[in-house]
Amino acid sequence: MLRVTTDKNNILQYTQGKMTLKEDLIVTEHPVTLKINGVEFATLVCTPEYMEDMAIGFLASEGVISNYNDIKDIWVQEKEGFIHIKIDALDPNFQYLSSKRYIASCCGKSRQGFVFFNDVRTAKRIQTTDVNLSFEDCFRLMNQMQEEATTFSQTGGVHNAALCDRNQVLLSRMDIGRHNALDKIYGYCIKHQIPMTDKIIVFSGRISSEILLKVAKMRCEVILSKSAPTSLTLELAEDLGITTVGFIRNESCNVYTHPERFLEYKNLRLQDLDK
Amino acid sequence: MLRVTTDKNNILQYTQGKMTLKEDLIVTEHPVTLKINGVEFATLVCTPEYMEDMAIGFLASEGVISNYNDIKDIWVQEKEGFIHIKIDALDPNFQYLSSKRYIASCCGKSRQGFVFFNDVRTAKRIQTTDVNLSFEDCFRLMNQMQEEATTFSQTGGVHNAALCDRNQVLLSRMDIGRHNALDKIYGYCIKHQIPMTDKIIVFSGRISSEILLKVAKMRCEVILSKSAPTSLTLELAEDLGITTVGFIRNESCNVYTHPERFLEYKNLRLQDLDK
Repeated sequence: MLRVTTDKNNILQYTQGKMTLKEDLIVTEHPVTLKINGVEFATLVCTPEYMEDMAIGFLASEGVISNYNDIKDIWVQEKEGFIHIKIDALDPNFQYLSSKRYIASCCGKSRQGFVFFNDVRTAKRIQTTDVNLSFEDCFRLMNQMQEEATTFSQTGGVHNAALCDRNQVLLSRMDIGRHNALDKIYGYCIKHQIPMTDKIIVFSGRISSEILLKVAKMRCEVILSKSAPTSLTLELAEDLGITTVGFIRNESCNVYTHPERFLEYKNLRLQDLDK
Repeated sequence: MLRVTTDKNNILQYTQGKMTLKEDLIVTEHPVTLKINGVEFATLVCTPEYMEDMAIGFLASEGVISNYNDIKDIWVQEKEGFIHIKIDALDPNFQYLSSKRYIASCCGKSRQGFVFFNDVRTAKRIQTTDVNLSFEDCFRLMNQMQEEATTFSQTGGVHNAALCDRNQVLLSRMDIGRHNALDKIYGYCIKHQIPMTDKIIVFSGRISSEILLKVAKMRCEVILSKSAPTSLTLELAEDLGITTVGFIRNESCNVYTHPERFLEYKNLRLQDLDK
């Protein structure tokens, strides 16, 4: 088993005018190739833990599977860097999906909302408002996720994502790849049939359109982030019915879309609102 | 012309227990598809400025072109989201490159250094030490880049990259995609035949293996970052002869590889070094 998320490295540290040789923890970066029925589908570069969950979440997000039962077998060759997936009833669109070359460059994929076939199939408008939360909940959940993020505090080199209900963090995952952290959560929930509709995603990184689409595919109603969204993210979030909250820092935050899930907003009298 | 890097949005801000409706600047996210001789090559999601430079840098980085003269024509259909490139003598490996599906997930691509054919062809070990710098230079260059980063300070949603010599920032670019910011610099330098071997890259984000490989392809000897590297990055940097410096904050930093380009290190007497 690899399962090593950090490596030790000797570094030269310069601080207060003085050089010091010291040992430092560095986050591991591990490329892994998904093979579906023996054919290469994609290469993900990730932090090597929960890789099976990541693969399941990724395939669901890409529209290759619609539920866990579609996977007849899955096994991880960790050291060799392969995840093998056996799917009997492969979607006839698989070839189309597979041949679609795409460079993520960290952020987004989609023109005017939906360029990619699989996004249209897998991201649908959320009509429910099962989640109600307060601003106090936002701050508490963000703090809780950050307190649990030990690899980040050791290395500074990973993204964190958490699945929460209003009260607490239920599942927390980290990865050098922002999408992978979410896929690890998505895959776990699919495998264990945990409903996500009434849950909240807390995320350490910026909310690109691609992250927002993934949250929509997971059917989560709310995403909370320490960081910024993009304009395309907000267009999509508006259309898809998702509450986006950014810049959660020091008991302050911005609500960009669908504030109606906030208790304080619902209880608002118009005269309370500064303009 | 689009050239709009920020949009205005109405947001609900919560701070110190009070809700306020205000207008906020949000960074634009714009998908653009590169077509080579009429055939789709890749879709990049970017901040819509310097898109021609970005395309040139991307194609050089991917090994599709080896210099600017390989491009017979290039034009940007900004609103429609296309960049058309005409290349007469297309590399016979183009089909191979083009059919290689790849999901970046923000970080890295390569197994044990080099999985991808074009990386082997385009990233070679740097044998020179044309760049010499001091720790003081590191801090000054990082500060200078950050002071110029107005879109980041307005929106919090972009990465910044700068090409520098020891004394100053020469060229500074931003993008929602970390790779795009570097490609915009790379493309500009290729187009205007600006040598990069004696230059320094300053970067706002984490140094994934993919970022490091791009720096190697640009033939830059040094990368300075505010943030963390990964273990694979450091293996590659060691092999490729690149000086990597991370966590540049408050007059402090970590040197991970090839410290020999630092004047203080070269002048070091062993008894000065704390262990």
